[in-house]
Amino acid sequence: MKLLIVGGVAGGASAAARARRLSEDAEIILVERGPEVSFANCGLPYYIGGEIKSRDKLVVTTPERLRTRFTLDVRTQSNVESIDPTNRKVRIKNLITGDVYEESYDRLILAPGAAPVRPTIEGIDLPGIYTLRNLQDVDRIKQRVDGNIKHATVLGGGFIGLEVAENLNHLKIPTTLIERNRQLLGPMDAEMTKPILQTLRDHGVDVRLGENVVKIEKTDHGLRLILGSGGSLETSMLMVGIGVKPEVSLAESAGLRIGKSGGIWVDEHMRTSDRDIFAVGDAIEISHVVLGEQSIVLLAGPANRQGRIAADNALGGDSRYRGTQGTAIVGVLGKTAAMTGASEKALVRAGRAFRKVYIHPTDHAGYYPGAESMTLKMLFDPATGEILGGEGVGGAGVDKRIDILAVAIQAEMTVFDLEEMELCYSPQYGSAKDPINMLGFVAAGMIRGQHPQTDMEGFLSSDGSTDYILDVRTQEEFDRGHLPGATNISVDELRSNLDRLPKDQRIAAYCQVGQRGYLATRILNQSGFDAVNMGGGYKTYQLLAD
Amino acid sequence: MKLLIVGGVAGGASAAARARRLSEDAEIILVERGPEVSFANCGLPYYIGGEIKSRDKLVVTTPERLRTRFTLDVRTQSNVESIDPTNRKVRIKNLITGDVYEESYDRLILAPGAAPVRPTIEGIDLPGIYTLRNLQDVDRIKQRVDGNIKHATVLGGGFIGLEVAENLNHLKIPTTLIERNRQLLGPMDAEMTKPILQTLRDHGVDVRLGENVVKIEKTDHGLRLILGSGGSLETSMLMVGIGVKPEVSLAESAGLRIGKSGGIWVDEHMRTSDRDIFAVGDAIEISHVVLGEQSIVLLAGPANRQGRIAADNALGGDSRYRGTQGTAIVGVLGKTAAMTGASEKALVRAGRAFRKVYIHPTDHAGYYPGAESMTLKMLFDPATGEILGGEGVGGAGVDKRIDILAVAIQAEMTVFDLEEMELCYSPQYGSAKDPINMLGFVAAGMIRGQHPQTDMEGFLSSDGSTDYILDVRTQEEFDRGHLPGATNISVDELRSNLDRLPKDQRIAAYCQVGQRGYLATRILNQSGFDAVNMGGGYKTYQLLAD
Repeated sequence: MKLLIVGGVAGGASAAARARRLSEDAEIILVERGPEVSFANCGLPYYIGGEIKSRDKLVVTTPERLRTRFTLDVRTQSNVESIDPTNRKVRIKNLITGDVYEESYDRLILAPGAAPVRPTIEGIDLPGIYTLRNLQDVDRIKQRVDGNIKHATVLGGGFIGLEVAENLNHLKIPTTLIERNRQLLGPMDAEMTKPILQTLRDHGVDVRLGENVVKIEKTDHGLRLILGSGGSLETSMLMVGIGVKPEVSLAESAGLRIGKSGGIWVDEHMRTSDRDIFAVGDAIEISHVVLGEQSIVLLAGPANRQGRIAADNALGGDSRYRGTQGTAIVGVLGKTAAMTGASEKALVRAGRAFRKVYIHPTDHAGYYPGAESMTLKMLFDPATGEILGGEGVGGAGVDKRIDILAVAIQAEMTVFDLEEMELCYSPQYGSAKDPINMLGFVAAGMIRGQHPQTDMEGFLSSDGSTDYILDVRTQEEFDRGHLPGATNISVDELRSNLDRLPKDQRIAAYCQVGQRGYLATRILNQSGFDAVNMGGGYKTYQLLAD
Repeated sequence: MKLLIVGGVAGGASAAARARRLSEDAEIILVERGPEVSFANCGLPYYIGGEIKSRDKLVVTTPERLRTRFTLDVRTQSNVESIDPTNRKVRIKNLITGDVYEESYDRLILAPGAAPVRPTIEGIDLPGIYTLRNLQDVDRIKQRVDGNIKHATVLGGGFIGLEVAENLNHLKIPTTLIERNRQLLGPMDAEMTKPILQTLRDHGVDVRLGENVVKIEKTDHGLRLILGSGGSLETSMLMVGIGVKPEVSLAESAGLRIGKSGGIWVDEHMRTSDRDIFAVGDAIEISHVVLGEQSIVLLAGPANRQGRIAADNALGGDSRYRGTQGTAIVGVLGKTAAMTGASEKALVRAGRAFRKVYIHPTDHAGYYPGAESMTLKMLFDPATGEILGGEGVGGAGVDKRIDILAVAIQAEMTVFDLEEMELCYSPQYGSAKDPINMLGFVAAGMIRGQHPQTDMEGFLSSDGSTDYILDVRTQEEFDRGHLPGATNISVDELRSNLDRLPKDQRIAAYCQVGQRGYLATRILNQSGFDAVNMGGGYKTYQLLAD
């Protein structure tokens, strides 16, 4: 068995190591265009900012180590120029000598990754403009930022753009972040990204949403960015992080099927349209377990697993990839944003029925010092209660709750299962009713009809709401800010003030986070009123209102 | 509907609030022996140590607030003396006035809790000896420790004992911890508690395992503890935390069924043997979802959920409790120990077939600063791969992994599902192959037969091992310490040294944590040797060896 692997970073390196563990006899050739294999992709921004001090830390393994430990035939600085699937051969160019030669294979695994997109803007190829993909890129950027620059600009407010902006901020470099859309972190729902926007601004990052760069000019000291909004911006360097494009040209020219989303098509065995060729990682399209749609997923975890699976199958096994949930996380200046499963906008786009809850808990018991607040949002099926997606933003403990929801989605659990979850509780780690239980209580109450709830969007819609808006917080909370047109009767005084409320109009009650609003709704409905709780309370209103 | 609830802390208070949300009309009486309701039980040790500075923080809610918000008839300092189930009446004694009166009920919920066990030792009632159950206890202890004491002793190395010892250590009070058994944290497997023992000792706590107190004498300055081992110990105060006993006397005298484990028997609706009486919390026995056996579980989370369920059913609903997993966690001087599901010793006791894995990962990617190490142990069904239990000990991130395993057990997931889990990964939060995935890889490889593994216990057993012990770490690692009798050939040199190995003897290979040992096993088995990997490597050996 002769296995040839194209690409030696996450998916390719995993496939190679797995293949060797499965077969001592197989001839395994790993061809990598760059000088390195298996580097810590996700660590690159932190090396720029100096969080990761030593460049060596970014090197997960060396070609030499792969050779000795896994007896791999590692060929770096070698580019696979073409594939001849009929004769099971590839043409490889040695990028140092320029020599081109043929290599045969029994099975081929493609792990070419994805390349950063460079927008077609006049001046995009000027010096001082960078993308970030590999160690060579990071060396160039590091050299530039260590040269005492006056100002940096990041184009693109996605996961990598934010990580770069954070690290430039660590270096105390005045930074502008330009994002074309009206929100950061495109895959997430807009309201859940607002605390991240606020954090960036609080740290002095100049974030410009709904902005773009239309032209770039060279100046004496750096660059001038001509902006879509009309103005311009002087900057020392421009870091472009607006997305990546799967590297499919090799696969395409070999006649392999390319999926609708632009990635290499594979089946659940990671097999391409040619039965001897497999593909993994950022270059392929895979199906989303919740949405069912095909998409390109740029995550190291899935790439590693796909590599294992492709190796299994290339060597005659039967391993299957179940699809992705799109679990993702980003840390920005002490805050965390994370998601798993489907976002609300993806469900809307897919025309899928759903309901949602917001809660605003702390990561651990409030009576123990150091509790940090977060907002969690959960999407679920309105009939069955199956969990469709979760998003979180805040301080400590967001990662834990999103991981729990990720597992719940994988297990096809429902909101009723969340009610029952028995999670670690001691005051430093959680609460007797963990935020995850709370998500379950609220959502299950909605499905059971015990907790009639309306989304804030009804109130915020342009038609306006016909509800009687009732603020059940204290007078003090009300005075600090409330929904326009709301009447204030605190929940503790509600029972003795029922005569002040309308019998012929629906009452929409709210509090700060939703709990008192829930009790108020229970009181009102049992007293003959038509009442609903405004989900997630005033804190959710603040996230949703513009 | 007249609902009477006995006990106003976790389960009782939850039941009362839930009942009111379900029914505005119900008459709800909450009878509590102490002066407070719903205090933060789990926070008491941290108030002693000053982590929680204000006593007010321990008061979750007040009788007054329950009255106004939930219109409950709260009667503190009132003791229910007896129940007359036939006539659905209780006798209540007002502990202030001494008056005794009758109160009727339609439904009764018992949430009496459990009382700390005081061992029958001569001198146990001397001044300076404390147990910790409520705010009055904590006030007494706080007064004592704030009085500049010279030395404190904690009797019992369970969860609460360790929390108290930690807090005494915070106060820089020289402390001795005495535990009768040969290990701390009885519910966990002994080897998983060793890092906690080490941490306590590193911080100067004088931990004595396999020790007990047989007599207590009063001295001029405090107490003299006469020890089972023969010596004695001068101490200023003794904190007794050797366990609790469910308060079943009220239920027992009312003729309610008491379970084998000594708790009040209830069905899945939390209903006792009398159909109008429910019981919840520390006083009842519930079934363990993995082991099936009945036990008493002293956890706030389950108590709260049981309270909700009892209220639902008392008011005519149909809510069911699924049983407990025994998820528990404790923080000790910067280290965390946690468990969920069945321990190894519980599985052995139950005669249940299982296999196990140990891994020693870091909480996040090693290339990002601040990674902390942990040990995870997982028990699973050898045939189906169903997860039976998990334990963790170490630094950051233990709570997250045990929570994930708790959800996996709840969902009846297998080790194959762990391989596929798509968890949050960014270098601050996890690894591309999360520790949870690694547990899955190792365990699934064992079941698939790709990863022949033997437990360290075979080597450690008194018969001795007949295996050829092969250390595949580097010479340097080997020189720092290795298994007695092991031969060292590093994995990278293994292929060229196969002729040094026996063909007629099983080879048991090991490395530091298990990964290189796994590769070595693959190499050896494919080269015609009979080889197994010693699960968890040298780190596991260090935990298991005495």
